[in-house]
Amino acid sequence: MVSDESHEYNVKVDWTHGRVGKFTVENKPEIEVATPPEFGGPEGIISPEDLFVGAATSCLMTTFVTFTGKMRFDFKSFTCEGVGTLEKVEKGFQFTKLLLKASVIVESEDLVPKAERALELAGKYCLVSNSMKCPTEHENHVEVG
Amino acid sequence: MVSDESHEYNVKVDWTHGRVGKFTVENKPEIEVATPPEFGGPEGIISPEDLFVGAATSCLMTTFVTFTGKMRFDFKSFTCEGVGTLEKVEKGFQFTKLLLKASVIVESEDLVPKAERALELAGKYCLVSNSMKCPTEHENHVEVG
Repeated sequence: MVSDESHEYNVKVDWTHGRVGKFTVENKPEIEVATPPEFGGPEGIISPEDLFVGAATSCLMTTFVTFTGKMRFDFKSFTCEGVGTLEKVEKGFQFTKLLLKASVIVESEDLVPKAERALELAGKYCLVSNSMKCPTEHENHVEVG
Repeated sequence: MVSDESHEYNVKVDWTHGRVGKFTVENKPEIEVATPPEFGGPEGIISPEDLFVGAATSCLMTTFVTFTGKMRFDFKSFTCEGVGTLEKVEKGFQFTKLLLKASVIVESEDLVPKAERALELAGKYCLVSNSMKCPTEHENHVEVG
């Protein structure tokens, strides 16, 4: 990789009705999006807030997988819960905290420190949470199973 | 709304195979997520980067709809293209720029300045882009149709 490498991500959002729209990325499945119920939107539809927290949570996963590849070890499962906190600041609402709780299962005891290290590196290099203003807290858990 | 109001958003990401996982929010449709092709992932699957840009783009829509309600006017269509630029910084990659190009169609000439004002306010109060480190540029277009 060279230092002037850059990538562009293009998306589109079209309003459909009420507080609902569709989020599309070329050649990828469409996602219905809406204002969440606490701000007057309907139940059961992914909100921009969900996407924001989901972006960081899924980026931790993809970054972890990348590091397990670089470190040449396998894992049995990875799951991560993301919790984003929205609070009122001077200029309306803003995300003020992000908590990522990752759990990894590996096959043997010797892989535990490797998985812990890969989780730590994933947290450090997660490009999505690094692009957010709010601090990110991590709770990592690795076990043999 | 009181100044100590806060909201929490809970999501979950489970790795499934390779560089792919599923992103879930309780009682909402599941979204498959993966590392994008430029970082070694498969084609055709929503990436964390797409979710990040989509979060800001969809938040502009929901915030615009909220302001049209407060300002009591109707619009015929709203569409927004979001472009996020990822660049190498000291600590790996980071989003360094976000461009939101919004287009609104209204029924009559007198609604044009209202729609322009609602777009401006939506940009200012878009809580997702306000939670991101990178600057957001806006290109707003309103026409009668």
